[in-house]
Amino acid sequence: MPSSFNFHHSLAMEIESETRQKAGLFTSGVSWLKALPGKAMNKAVKVAKSTKELGQDDPRRVTHSLKVGLALTMVSLLYYWRPLYNDFGVSGMSAVMTVIAVFEFRVGASLSKSLNKGFATLLAGVLGVGAEHTTRLFGEKGEPFALGLLVFLLATTSSFTRFCPRIKARYDYGVLIFILTFTLVSVSGYRVDQQLLQMAHQTVSTVVIGAASCIIISIFVCPVWAGEDLHKLIASNLKNLANYLEGFESEYFQDSVDELMKGGATASEGDKAVLLQGYKTVLNSENDEESLANFARWEPGHGLFPFRHPWKQYLKIGALARQCAYHIEALNGHIVNYSYIQAPIEFRYRIRESTTKMNSESSKALQALATAIKTMTDPSAANSHVEMSKTAINELEIALKADSIVLENADLLAIIPIASVTSMLIEITRCVEKICESVHELSCLAHFKSVVEPSVSPEKPQLLHRGRIKPLLDGDSSTDHVTITVPATSNMNIGPMENEISEVPKDSQRLGL
Amino acid sequence: MPSSFNFHHSLAMEIESETRQKAGLFTSGVSWLKALPGKAMNKAVKVAKSTKELGQDDPRRVTHSLKVGLALTMVSLLYYWRPLYNDFGVSGMSAVMTVIAVFEFRVGASLSKSLNKGFATLLAGVLGVGAEHTTRLFGEKGEPFALGLLVFLLATTSSFTRFCPRIKARYDYGVLIFILTFTLVSVSGYRVDQQLLQMAHQTVSTVVIGAASCIIISIFVCPVWAGEDLHKLIASNLKNLANYLEGFESEYFQDSVDELMKGGATASEGDKAVLLQGYKTVLNSENDEESLANFARWEPGHGLFPFRHPWKQYLKIGALARQCAYHIEALNGHIVNYSYIQAPIEFRYRIRESTTKMNSESSKALQALATAIKTMTDPSAANSHVEMSKTAINELEIALKADSIVLENADLLAIIPIASVTSMLIEITRCVEKICESVHELSCLAHFKSVVEPSVSPEKPQLLHRGRIKPLLDGDSSTDHVTITVPATSNMNIGPMENEISEVPKDSQRLGL
Repeated sequence: MPSSFNFHHSLAMEIESETRQKAGLFTSGVSWLKALPGKAMNKAVKVAKSTKELGQDDPRRVTHSLKVGLALTMVSLLYYWRPLYNDFGVSGMSAVMTVIAVFEFRVGASLSKSLNKGFATLLAGVLGVGAEHTTRLFGEKGEPFALGLLVFLLATTSSFTRFCPRIKARYDYGVLIFILTFTLVSVSGYRVDQQLLQMAHQTVSTVVIGAASCIIISIFVCPVWAGEDLHKLIASNLKNLANYLEGFESEYFQDSVDELMKGGATASEGDKAVLLQGYKTVLNSENDEESLANFARWEPGHGLFPFRHPWKQYLKIGALARQCAYHIEALNGHIVNYSYIQAPIEFRYRIRESTTKMNSESSKALQALATAIKTMTDPSAANSHVEMSKTAINELEIALKADSIVLENADLLAIIPIASVTSMLIEITRCVEKICESVHELSCLAHFKSVVEPSVSPEKPQLLHRGRIKPLLDGDSSTDHVTITVPATSNMNIGPMENEISEVPKDSQRLGL
Repeated sequence: MPSSFNFHHSLAMEIESETRQKAGLFTSGVSWLKALPGKAMNKAVKVAKSTKELGQDDPRRVTHSLKVGLALTMVSLLYYWRPLYNDFGVSGMSAVMTVIAVFEFRVGASLSKSLNKGFATLLAGVLGVGAEHTTRLFGEKGEPFALGLLVFLLATTSSFTRFCPRIKARYDYGVLIFILTFTLVSVSGYRVDQQLLQMAHQTVSTVVIGAASCIIISIFVCPVWAGEDLHKLIASNLKNLANYLEGFESEYFQDSVDELMKGGATASEGDKAVLLQGYKTVLNSENDEESLANFARWEPGHGLFPFRHPWKQYLKIGALARQCAYHIEALNGHIVNYSYIQAPIEFRYRIRESTTKMNSESSKALQALATAIKTMTDPSAANSHVEMSKTAINELEIALKADSIVLENADLLAIIPIASVTSMLIEITRCVEKICESVHELSCLAHFKSVVEPSVSPEKPQLLHRGRIKPLLDGDSSTDHVTITVPATSNMNIGPMENEISEVPKDSQRLGL
């Protein structure tokens, strides 16, 4: 009976494997136990390391923790100090709770929570006392039902308002505290009766004490301003985009295979990873930016930022920067699949100069804009770069137009990838233009100071350096510009190109490139 | 003296304009007051409308609000009901506070907060009582200092741990409650002395009661599961991408100018806006997805989702969908600037069929994947679409290769925009391929049921419909496929193309297109 044999055989094997498994489990258990102290040690070292890193990454975290400790210890005085305890009694608890709930990393967040808590407590306290007095009219039997119904209705409607996006963004905590205080006051009133008013008074005072100490400590002891963080975040986002474009140029437009072979690729691997990381943080910055702007609105004037600083404009710039980052992400996904070198060499030479110029000018423009925001100075240093990059787009179009003639025996399939990279770069350049406009708006709204000397001096050498290329103005398309776009190495025929030039519309937007 | 005259003149004008301004202010003030009742009415109507919309958008919001009201009213019984009040006294307050702080919209969030609160309270309570007893050894004078120091140290270190991303994501609320309870217990102990243990016991019991009622109500009364929401979000994200691609096809590849003139453009304006909105929500979905996945991990098994459902895999699919959305965003920014019609007609005809096919197959694949996730069935229905889209890429390459011959007198500048749109679409198709793989992984991990009948029946007619095109397999590039990609209207020469075909590598990845 072969089937029976098979069955027995497989059973035996199963048992054997099970025994082996059990033995394996036992040995692995023993070795796990033996390794335990070492593992615990490793874990502890790891935790200590990451803790140290957390503190080193942003030393303000350490300060913040110390500030929380300080605020709590201060508020505990309500208990320790006899005269204060006599005044406030167990209501000191509310102060402790307030400090813990309200104290946040950034001044704006602490302020918004403190004010929310303060006003909500006051309003709910008054309403709660009123409700308790009113429901007393229903008699001893009716009071709990009337109170219960009131609590139910108020809790339901208030909870519902928390779904409203506007209230959620600014007053969420206030609504929560309102429900809490109203319930506590009205319900406690049912039991504690006589002392209700005194209790309410004590609670409100201690909440105010707690909130006030939070506000004072967060503003006056090493403050962390949300507005300043937003300002820096936007500037660093622009810088990250600029870095990518700068890195992209050297990474992508490597001209000879030799450079790749020389280990240029491996050397730049690390750089590239850093650059990648940079713009990727921009992709998902919307929530951070919005919450920072929300907090910044609550902050009083500080340093260079007055009370009504145009924080909304920062969000606008942030959105444009994100748009640019999306294009970069698409570009980045695109270039993974092929290399510049695959395109025919004459085509590469044809577009290289203008593409590189467009790219580097965009990068410089972003850099200048980031610096302008950071130093709060007039961003007009970026204008010339933006103009240059627009000129480069025009030049590129001329070069491409010229190409349709010499392409006869070239491979369209090999050209298309690089052509689409080029057209993505053009999109990015357009984004940079929009960012530039929007930074100019910010500069007007926030009255950035116009610096004459420093903004011109780093500009001038570049203009001199670029002096051989007269910037192309609209409607000005004389042939001598075109000769500049053509490198000496390329073997194109100038003749037909000159005929073509008159047909090239200057408005690149209309052309769709 | 003309300057004096000027001065007087300008002063008079200034005064006049000021008077006018004041009069203007007064009249505008009066009209503002007159319009006030109407404005208030309008405002009220607006608020009522938006409230109604909030409720209609997601009726679960209304249910949630009612649930909060119910939980609060239930917990208030601790006050109203004499026997319970005798047991718990004013500690009933903790129950109210717990309910308000812990009750969240989604089950996972409520659970995570409840458990955090419960364990943190227990741990901090025990430690607090211990601390109070220990510091008593320092004598009456030393005790407040020792306690203050302890509170300071604990608050500082705990606040610092909240910066650790892992703790922040899962235990943030627990740490907060830990600091709160420890401070309250240890500090209260300094004053209330004898009853400390009783108070701690009462507090812990009421917290447990509050947390338990939250958990029970949120699980058993119309539960809103974070896991289910994540599941639906990912499916709808894929559907949004599919919609865009579907809309894009009809929007972009309009062949004749007539169609545009016929008002087709205006009719699709509304549709296009909806489609735009759709994929744009995917761009910024990371935070939502992550918090949902975080909550889902706390949820018990429910409906089709067991306890250890592979929520992480959803995040992976979400990230790939976002990648795809970035490409779409770039594409969308790109096509605003020009239209398909600008490209030479023969080129358009050449690439139209394969591009449209690639696009529509990607869209169908995404649609199939979205349906597979939604119904938790085997996603292999998408495979054939993905294969078809790959075939279309190959066909497109052949068509482009063929084009390099007939392009002699075509305009490269006009071709490049449409070529880059095509190559962006290819990138999107690649993304869809990756999404398909990742949904297959999910299907394995989550044991999606394999449905034979329903998944084949909607598929078959399509396969029959496409039956005239034999799917291109790798290494299979006989000429009869190519004749299909060429519409009868185009005036290309077949001869040289056949020679070209042997040179077209099948591995499109290597080609970089």
